[in-house]
Amino acid sequence: MKVAIAIDSFKGSLGSIEAGNAAAEGVLRAAPGAECAVRPLADGGEGTVEALASGLGGKLREVEVTGPAGKRVVAVYGIVGETAVMEMAQAAGITLVSGADRNPLRTTTRGVGEMIMDAIGRGCRRFVVGIGGSATNDAGAGMLQALGFGLLDAAGNAIAPGGAALSSVSRIVRDGAHPALKECVFRIACDVTNPLCGERGASAVYGPQKGATPEMVAALDAALAHFAAVSSGDPDWPGSGAAGGLGFAFREFLGAELKSGAEIVLEETRFEEVVRDADLVITGEGRLDSQTVMGKAPVGVARMAKKYGKKVLAFSGCVTRDAGIVNRHGIDAFFPILREVTTLEEALDKGNAAANLAATTEQAVRCFLLGAH
Amino acid sequence: MKVAIAIDSFKGSLGSIEAGNAAAEGVLRAAPGAECAVRPLADGGEGTVEALASGLGGKLREVEVTGPAGKRVVAVYGIVGETAVMEMAQAAGITLVSGADRNPLRTTTRGVGEMIMDAIGRGCRRFVVGIGGSATNDAGAGMLQALGFGLLDAAGNAIAPGGAALSSVSRIVRDGAHPALKECVFRIACDVTNPLCGERGASAVYGPQKGATPEMVAALDAALAHFAAVSSGDPDWPGSGAAGGLGFAFREFLGAELKSGAEIVLEETRFEEVVRDADLVITGEGRLDSQTVMGKAPVGVARMAKKYGKKVLAFSGCVTRDAGIVNRHGIDAFFPILREVTTLEEALDKGNAAANLAATTEQAVRCFLLGAH
Repeated sequence: MKVAIAIDSFKGSLGSIEAGNAAAEGVLRAAPGAECAVRPLADGGEGTVEALASGLGGKLREVEVTGPAGKRVVAVYGIVGETAVMEMAQAAGITLVSGADRNPLRTTTRGVGEMIMDAIGRGCRRFVVGIGGSATNDAGAGMLQALGFGLLDAAGNAIAPGGAALSSVSRIVRDGAHPALKECVFRIACDVTNPLCGERGASAVYGPQKGATPEMVAALDAALAHFAAVSSGDPDWPGSGAAGGLGFAFREFLGAELKSGAEIVLEETRFEEVVRDADLVITGEGRLDSQTVMGKAPVGVARMAKKYGKKVLAFSGCVTRDAGIVNRHGIDAFFPILREVTTLEEALDKGNAAANLAATTEQAVRCFLLGAH
Repeated sequence: MKVAIAIDSFKGSLGSIEAGNAAAEGVLRAAPGAECAVRPLADGGEGTVEALASGLGGKLREVEVTGPAGKRVVAVYGIVGETAVMEMAQAAGITLVSGADRNPLRTTTRGVGEMIMDAIGRGCRRFVVGIGGSATNDAGAGMLQALGFGLLDAAGNAIAPGGAALSSVSRIVRDGAHPALKECVFRIACDVTNPLCGERGASAVYGPQKGATPEMVAALDAALAHFAAVSSGDPDWPGSGAAGGLGFAFREFLGAELKSGAEIVLEETRFEEVVRDADLVITGEGRLDSQTVMGKAPVGVARMAKKYGKKVLAFSGCVTRDAGIVNRHGIDAFFPILREVTTLEEALDKGNAAANLAATTEQAVRCFLLGAH
């Protein structure tokens, strides 16, 4: 029996590869001769760098960059061959700022650009960037400036950091951009389709959760529209509004492809090659619920598996009452790994979680094989 | 698909039939055309009366009897046709006494005899009696007296209640016993094989947990040996020492058959008839652990299923780390029904437990069928 395994991280507990290895242990207990192919899984959000770096034999790199509010922060990204794997939130995430610093008029994506420059300097020419969880609403202006693009006001000076200053941009100079960018390929993991501006735009939909008042939303929306007009980009392109407009900058200035995070991860790990050969596909994530069907990684795995008519089991730290809907999205059966009444702390403990996942997988695979024989 | 379902009660939560019905609901969600036969399951201990009475269309009866320490208690037993289903603990159980009343020199099984007399009066001629959890060490003397047997001392007076008084018995008069007893059949659910006396006997092994000091154990052991000698019974017969020697009285005076509780229950419910026809057998209990293999009901179900080469799934409120051993005793795969981190109180709530059991069964049966197709 060949088993293809790709499980998203159990947030706060097992990493993707740790979870995959625990499941593989359970499979082998139930079917000693089985061949298990464990691949990393992530959805472009938290855990993506760790999953891809550890699962594809890469390494992690720490780099100090400008944080969203201007203070220096340490960002971690992964290097796998010539591919850099990044989460924008490492450099400009909402969790990096609090209080008065949560001000999308001023927060900047400059650190994202600095991270990319660091990777270019280390030879990377392919970039996989997850762009969820931003603190910013600057349409990627800070990133572009860090990469060498000139965003100039009427007096010819570089505009200040933050979304508000975009209202003063009058000219964009692309010549100063790092020359290696021409050779670079950017794949952006992005699960939203919002346009840059308007009532479904970055400022209106995501601004408030980053600290924007209604007045700030109006100002930011106008500023981003002005920036789009000056740059001659298409602000209506789906995904332009992702991460405070960072999607727009990636597409218009860096020729990036925007795609669902789960899909990009599955492509990067070449999961399709092991699925095609598998008798059983195993996936999962920390929590299985009705949101799982909204583009999250396990359903991405299930969709790929069903392309080849494969059978899919899922495992999770917990499942909610409404999780049954995943059965209609390619997950043939799913099992929470809890074994006893326990505290959240004990449940999240890595040792417990790995043992529980292995035990649950063992019994589920026994059940699966029972039907087969 | 035909599914035979017999699940022991989830103690403190679902009764046996409630659990069986919840599992059946899950089966039907996974396999809408399935035929589910739900039967009660119990091991002769707590829950046996409720399971058999509710599962076999019988009724419960409350009767006031003499408790183990002499105070009146209300005992519940079941009547199914002409069969009475009883737990000795209802009339003489350890949970009925506390403090100084936990004195096996004095505690009596008289109430057990009174319960039997009540059932005889209501036309019962078959008795299924579970004899776990006793507070007594009187070799069933109290029960025998309630049924009309004369246990007389040298002066021709009835001996006092309790195990200590057995040392003074000098003559046993069987003529006074209720005449209907000759027509009665007694099936005793008993999972221990201790002899009446000696170091593996009732007094030495079980006396201390009923409140006996080492001196009391010695006195009781001698008293029971004396009683056995006067009655000409066989004190070495396996199970004689069950329930403080009640096993001895049932066998020697009432011609009872002693048998594993799970086996008796399976016979009473004619579970074998539905197992023979089934494509899948489902069992379970509140807690699945390494003790489950020690003659507990789910393993009894599994053993019967394997006689016919049937496949067996088990479900439980929780499972322990060492539960995997049940896989070597006929339970092909097992699943705890917990879905989320929760408190014990929420987990035991009947509504939650039934919903969780149904959801877990649904996914397990989906998994089973997945392997089959």
